[in-house]
Amino acid sequence: MEQLSKLLEEFNAIEKELALLKGVLALLNWDRDVNLPKKAFNQRANQETLISVQVHNLFTSKKLTTLIKKLSKKSVYSKLSNNDKARIDLYNWKLKKLLKVPKEHIEEYTQTLSLAHHAWQDARTKESYAEFSPHLKKVFDLKKIEAKYIDPKVHPYSIFLDDYERGITMQELDKIFSELKSELLTMLSKIKASPNYNKINSIKPSSFGVYPKDAQMEVLNDVAIKILSDTDRFMLAETIHPFMTSISSDDIRITTAVRNDPFFSFGSTVHESGHALYELDFDSKIYETILSSDSSLSLALHESQSRFWENMICKSESFWKGYYSYYSSKFPFLKKISLDEFYRSINVAMPTLVRIESDELTYGLHVIIRYEIEKDLFEDKIKVEDLEHIWNSKYQEYLGIVPSKPSKGVIQDSHWSGGNIGYFPTYVLGSIYSAMIFNAIKKEHPQVEKEIEQLDFTFVKSWLKEHIHKYGASKTSKEIILAACGKDLDVKDFTSYLKNKYYTIYGIKE
Amino acid sequence: MEQLSKLLEEFNAIEKELALLKGVLALLNWDRDVNLPKKAFNQRANQETLISVQVHNLFTSKKLTTLIKKLSKKSVYSKLSNNDKARIDLYNWKLKKLLKVPKEHIEEYTQTLSLAHHAWQDARTKESYAEFSPHLKKVFDLKKIEAKYIDPKVHPYSIFLDDYERGITMQELDKIFSELKSELLTMLSKIKASPNYNKINSIKPSSFGVYPKDAQMEVLNDVAIKILSDTDRFMLAETIHPFMTSISSDDIRITTAVRNDPFFSFGSTVHESGHALYELDFDSKIYETILSSDSSLSLALHESQSRFWENMICKSESFWKGYYSYYSSKFPFLKKISLDEFYRSINVAMPTLVRIESDELTYGLHVIIRYEIEKDLFEDKIKVEDLEHIWNSKYQEYLGIVPSKPSKGVIQDSHWSGGNIGYFPTYVLGSIYSAMIFNAIKKEHPQVEKEIEQLDFTFVKSWLKEHIHKYGASKTSKEIILAACGKDLDVKDFTSYLKNKYYTIYGIKE
Repeated sequence: MEQLSKLLEEFNAIEKELALLKGVLALLNWDRDVNLPKKAFNQRANQETLISVQVHNLFTSKKLTTLIKKLSKKSVYSKLSNNDKARIDLYNWKLKKLLKVPKEHIEEYTQTLSLAHHAWQDARTKESYAEFSPHLKKVFDLKKIEAKYIDPKVHPYSIFLDDYERGITMQELDKIFSELKSELLTMLSKIKASPNYNKINSIKPSSFGVYPKDAQMEVLNDVAIKILSDTDRFMLAETIHPFMTSISSDDIRITTAVRNDPFFSFGSTVHESGHALYELDFDSKIYETILSSDSSLSLALHESQSRFWENMICKSESFWKGYYSYYSSKFPFLKKISLDEFYRSINVAMPTLVRIESDELTYGLHVIIRYEIEKDLFEDKIKVEDLEHIWNSKYQEYLGIVPSKPSKGVIQDSHWSGGNIGYFPTYVLGSIYSAMIFNAIKKEHPQVEKEIEQLDFTFVKSWLKEHIHKYGASKTSKEIILAACGKDLDVKDFTSYLKNKYYTIYGIKE
Repeated sequence: MEQLSKLLEEFNAIEKELALLKGVLALLNWDRDVNLPKKAFNQRANQETLISVQVHNLFTSKKLTTLIKKLSKKSVYSKLSNNDKARIDLYNWKLKKLLKVPKEHIEEYTQTLSLAHHAWQDARTKESYAEFSPHLKKVFDLKKIEAKYIDPKVHPYSIFLDDYERGITMQELDKIFSELKSELLTMLSKIKASPNYNKINSIKPSSFGVYPKDAQMEVLNDVAIKILSDTDRFMLAETIHPFMTSISSDDIRITTAVRNDPFFSFGSTVHESGHALYELDFDSKIYETILSSDSSLSLALHESQSRFWENMICKSESFWKGYYSYYSSKFPFLKKISLDEFYRSINVAMPTLVRIESDELTYGLHVIIRYEIEKDLFEDKIKVEDLEHIWNSKYQEYLGIVPSKPSKGVIQDSHWSGGNIGYFPTYVLGSIYSAMIFNAIKKEHPQVEKEIEQLDFTFVKSWLKEHIHKYGASKTSKEIILAACGKDLDVKDFTSYLKNKYYTIYGIKE
């Protein structure tokens, strides 16, 4: 036992150093987007590279891998606490992949991504998919080879899905997405056929007036504090693209972009606050371990928390019943706009070209298009060269619209140029989880919607902490969802939620 | 020669890594004071320690010390460029001290400082010097031992002066400070005897009205841009205690604290902008080397630049002739205050208890008191236990006032608890240099004061860059000042400047 405690002590020390370094790297990134003077970008990139390399070297160090090996021995592993077992499992899961891929492959891949990212930016400026296509082909080719290194017996796409949502397979997703797709297409066609469609969809919150920046910032701070409570553990800053990052367990940063589309700022701040609350609620026992500090946490579960607050709570009628009088007091021209009109203006369903500007309902179709394309590429059913055409046909088929230029189409997202293939599905899985979670909460505590009307989130927050947040990655999202919701991933909670919400708004009877 | 270029390449790589790490550390510190959520202080301290240790380990690494040794060999050294020689000289100068002090001593010292800092904070809260005294005694005792390790033949105080202003000795300072002290005491007694003394000193800029924060920030940004020109290489943020820090050569940060004493904010922003301009003007050849990235640059020369802009320029009548119409347009109540009245209100000379709140004239006396005490302690002429009494007597003798409580007296500064003994003199040396520099500029370019009236700093800035800034630490401040001003350190430029300015304000004839 003496031996075990010494091993654990060494392991803890390395994990702590890793967590500290990751925090430093997160600060370098955050500061780059929030503060950095323009001319310092190259020097900042050098600082980021230096610390990234330190993280990578420590993670793959002989020191750490030897420790993991020793702690993984049956006789030792069996004596570990559940949390320590989960830590070892996660390292083994990550290292298994990392150590199977030859160093030369990783180097070629890294260089390819760097060129691909520039090419992607170029292609967007020139509005030319052809500029990007050969780079994207190389990314997919290398990904296919990587998958073979890791496990030639598993479908390559499942291997990469697993990177973002541990344990999920392509077969499961196929089932879920096929059901979701058919439901979404039916809903969308009913909504488009509704006699109220044009009238409702013509109203946008930005058409009501000009939302001054100071007043918006006041509101954004207010809502962030309502969600996050403890102002001594987070901060809100401004950037171009909103994001959340964790610099240490008591230092969570959210950023916002203030626009005259006030709901963009509001929705994205609430979204990032949902991510932040998840991280702030981790059990302190998992601080500075891989269970809290690594993106190998379930991305879908993380996303479910941002979407829970953004959609289930802050786009709901209950929330606005409680919040509108404060909100409209900050923007006096809203006095003339009824609560009902405002609520509808932030809840239209309408096909659009750009994923990140789309609504709750059509969002799923954007993701399904990407999922189908990624899978078909891995199965060599389609060619990278033909992607622009394929993309446009799918948008025509599912959404009834076609991009006028590639930057609003096939090259709108940065994911592929960054090698993040298999990432998109986690967004929709997040929405599905969030609907399941909301149903579980309502079942246990039927008065929750009344409480939301009173802006009282006490129950919701304590439920989320107890059933979802505190675990971090000490359990898989499958385990967490099963225990919290009493069932496995089920798309019906989400589709019923959408039907119920949008059919009411558009006056559609089933 | 092949061999030499390889040595230099390795040396450059280590210096670059050191510079990057120091930049990362600077960002961790800056962000702590500007953004950090309260509860994250301990975690941030761990991040700072991790990177500090990396800097220290790399600086004293076998790899680097061996390289320095090889590059210091006569046959090799003689082939180096002047800049490379200066780099090697600086490393040898720093390492000589660092490697002579035993590791155990450094550890004891570090621990002592950590306790001393807490004790100092405690003592301030409790208003009790006795709380701090035993810790301060230990700091001085350890400093005396350290001096013996470094060079038992040199006066211990000279050893530490050299840490902050390379090459200066106690003997030189004694001469300068004795002349300065006698001049300052004479000036102060004449000013206090002036019939206008009470009238002039009763006017403070804060008495004119309330200066809204937004308008102050606008003015602060305006003046910082006037001094620093390139907005893509610096940024201004808010903190409690203003400071300047360099995160990389193109990323210089200045901070400000907005108070209703508008000149505190204005003066301190100009002061930090002066520091920033110095760093921004370094020759790009010395970027990411010890010649630009180390605090072993002359602190006095650095300080001369902040004081040049704060005092010589932005407290001058010429500057306000050009700036007052813009400045007063931001604070409408100033329309009733004449330029002359405003200028006098920011240029009173009056004994005060707190160094950082004192004026240009009495400032020197605050520093001389500290210098005399530090020296007497090293020479065992006085005891740490008696410091409160000694402090108060000196304030009575030189300034005619006595602190009502220790936080406004002997424990007002953090320097001693931080082990920074020998640091205070650099502040006054900075003032002396700044007066010498301004005289040199006026001699070469007599129309400079007219240009300042027009807020045209083109000549001043290019002169400073060419004669002072570009060198960084590639020359000592002695060499730089001699070449720029045509003479060695000379206190008379400063005393004449003060006489000329304050005798005019108070209507005193010599």
